Amino acid sequence: MQYHVNGELVPEAEATVSVDDRGFQYGDAGFETLRAYGGTLFKWAEHLDRLQNTCELLGMPDVIPGDLRERVEATLDANDLADAYVRMSITRGRQPGALTPQPEVDPTVVIIVKELPRAGVHGTPRWDGPATVQLVETRRNHPDAIPPGLKTHNYLNGILARLELRAADGTIEADDGIMLDTEGYVAEGTTANVFFVEDGVLHTPSLDGPILAGVTRDVVLELAADLDIPVETGRYRPERLREADELFLTNTTGEVWPIGKLDDQPFEVGPVTERLQAAYDELVEAFY
Amino acid sequence: MQYHVNGELVPEAEATVSVDDRGFQYGDAGFETLRAYGGTLFKWAEHLDRLQNTCELLGMPDVIPGDLRERVEATLDANDLADAYVRMSITRGRQPGALTPQPEVDPTVVIIVKELPRAGVHGTPRWDGPATVQLVETRRNHPDAIPPGLKTHNYLNGILARLELRAADGTIEADDGIMLDTEGYVAEGTTANVFFVEDGVLHTPSLDGPILAGVTRDVVLELAADLDIPVETGRYRPERLREADELFLTNTTGEVWPIGKLDDQPFEVGPVTERLQAAYDELVEAFY
Repeated sequence: MQYHVNGELVPEAEATVSVDDRGFQYGDAGFETLRAYGGTLFKWAEHLDRLQNTCELLGMPDVIPGDLRERVEATLDANDLADAYVRMSITRGRQPGALTPQPEVDPTVVIIVKELPRAGVHGTPRWDGPATVQLVETRRNHPDAIPPGLKTHNYLNGILARLELRAADGTIEADDGIMLDTEGYVAEGTTANVFFVEDGVLHTPSLDGPILAGVTRDVVLELAADLDIPVETGRYRPERLREADELFLTNTTGEVWPIGKLDDQPFEVGPVTERLQAAYDELVEAFY
Repeated sequence: MQYHVNGELVPEAEATVSVDDRGFQYGDAGFETLRAYGGTLFKWAEHLDRLQNTCELLGMPDVIPGDLRERVEATLDANDLADAYVRMSITRGRQPGALTPQPEVDPTVVIIVKELPRAGVHGTPRWDGPATVQLVETRRNHPDAIPPGLKTHNYLNGILARLELRAADGTIEADDGIMLDTEGYVAEGTTANVFFVEDGVLHTPSLDGPILAGVTRDVVLELAADLDIPVETGRYRPERLREADELFLTNTTGEVWPIGKLDDQPFEVGPVTERLQAAYDELVEAFY
C-alpha cells in the first residue's frame, strides 16, 4: 500500500513520523476517517468542516493544506482503490520548547488508506453480523476536560473502554463498549454513536452530552426524517437501552450496524433498523 | 543527538515511528521523563515503577525491556551527556484490527535525551526566574474517564490548558496553567504538581483528586518531613492559592519552581520555598 506523508506518496513501510513530532509525543493531532464509495469521497465537505473545527480548537486554524482532497484522491489512485477507508491526520509537527503549543505550525499531514468491500445495495457490510456490545465502567471524557467536538489522536479514553472487553484469557468478548458520561447517562460507543428504538420511535443521545456529532449519525437522522420515522433526542439512562426494541451503532465504516447483544441480553434486528439500513444502502448505491 | 529506538542508537533525524504505530495513531503509549544528574538517573526505581503501573493499566504488563536502564545509559553515553532530560516511551506498536488493543504486543521503545545544565548546590535551575501561572478553564480529566495514575502520550487535556495561555497576538502569557478538577478543586499544573504555604504549613492537593503522584512531589514531601515543616494534604478551592503566602510547582526538570505570579497577583519567593529548594539542591549535589 502507498500512504501519503507531507505531500509525497510513500510505501507503507517507509511512512513514518519523527519521534519528536507532537502527534507522537502528545497525540497533538486532528484527524478524520471517511469512506470512498466507488471512487467518491462520501460526505467530504462534512468531514473537512469537522477537521477544520478540530484544528481551530487546537489553536492551529491554518494547517489544512488546500489540496488535501487531491492528496486523498492521489493516494486512492496510487493504490487503485475505489472502495476504501481513509484516515487523514494533521499534527502540530515538531516545535521548539515543551508542552506549550507555539503559534507557528509546520504541520505533519498523513493520509492512510485501506481497502474495503463495495458497499450499497449490492455490497457487503464491513462487519460479519450484528454487533455485540458491553456497557463499560470507563466514563466518556468530561466536556470541561476534553470537549467532545475534538477528534484527535488522544484515544486513551476509548482504549480503556475497549480494554474492559478483554477476558482474563485474552479473548476479546465484544465489538464495542457503550460508554456513559460522568453523570451516568448514555453517551456513545468508543468509535460510534448509539441509537435505540422504543415503540417505533428512534432515540439517540442529544449533542448536549459529551458525544461526537457523528457524520453518519446526521445521515441517519436525515434518513429517518425522509422515512417519517419519529425521532427523539435526549439524555438517557442505560436502562432505556435494555428496555429498547432495537439497538444499533453508526459510524463511517460500519454505517448502520445493528446490535445483537448488549451484555448478556440478545436483541433482534428490527424493522426500523432494517428500513434505515436499506435507505443508507440506497443512498450509497448512487455512487456506483 | 543520538536517540534510541527499538534497541538501536539512531541519529535524531532518523528516529521515527510508523504512522501505523498505535503510539502515533492513538497516543497509546506509556512514558516517563527523568533527570540524569552527573551521570546518575535520579529516582530510577520510582520512575520505572510508575511506567510499569501505566503499562499494566494499559493492559500490556510485559512490555518493558529488561535492559531499559542500560538503553538509557547507552543513549546518554553516546551523546556524552551527564546532565540531561530523558524521555522513555513504550507504545503498543502496530497491531492488526482497529481500536481494540490485542493482548500480543510488540512494543515500540523510544528514548529521547536533551542536555540540561548541571543542577545541585553549584548548579543552574532549568528556569530563568519564578514561574508565572494562570488559573485556566480547562478542567483536569475526570478520574472515571482517564485515571490520573496513567502517564501516556494523551496530552490533549494539558494542551488545551496551555492554549489558554496564548494571547490574541500569539504571545504566550504564562509558563503553566493551574487546572481545577471537574468539581472545582485545585488539581495541578499541566506538567507539575502545585504546593502552597499558609502560616508556615505546606499544603498540596491529596491523591484523592485527579492528580499525578509526582516523583518530585514525593521527594518534596520527604524533605519537608526532614526539615520539620508541617504538611497538610487535602482538596482545596482556588481561593486558597490566592490567599497563600508562597506558591510553587514541582516536577522532574523544574524541581522546586517558585511561582512569582498567579494571574495578576504577584507572590514573593518565601522562606519555606527557599528551604525546600536548598534541601533539594543538597540532595542532588550528592550526585556530583
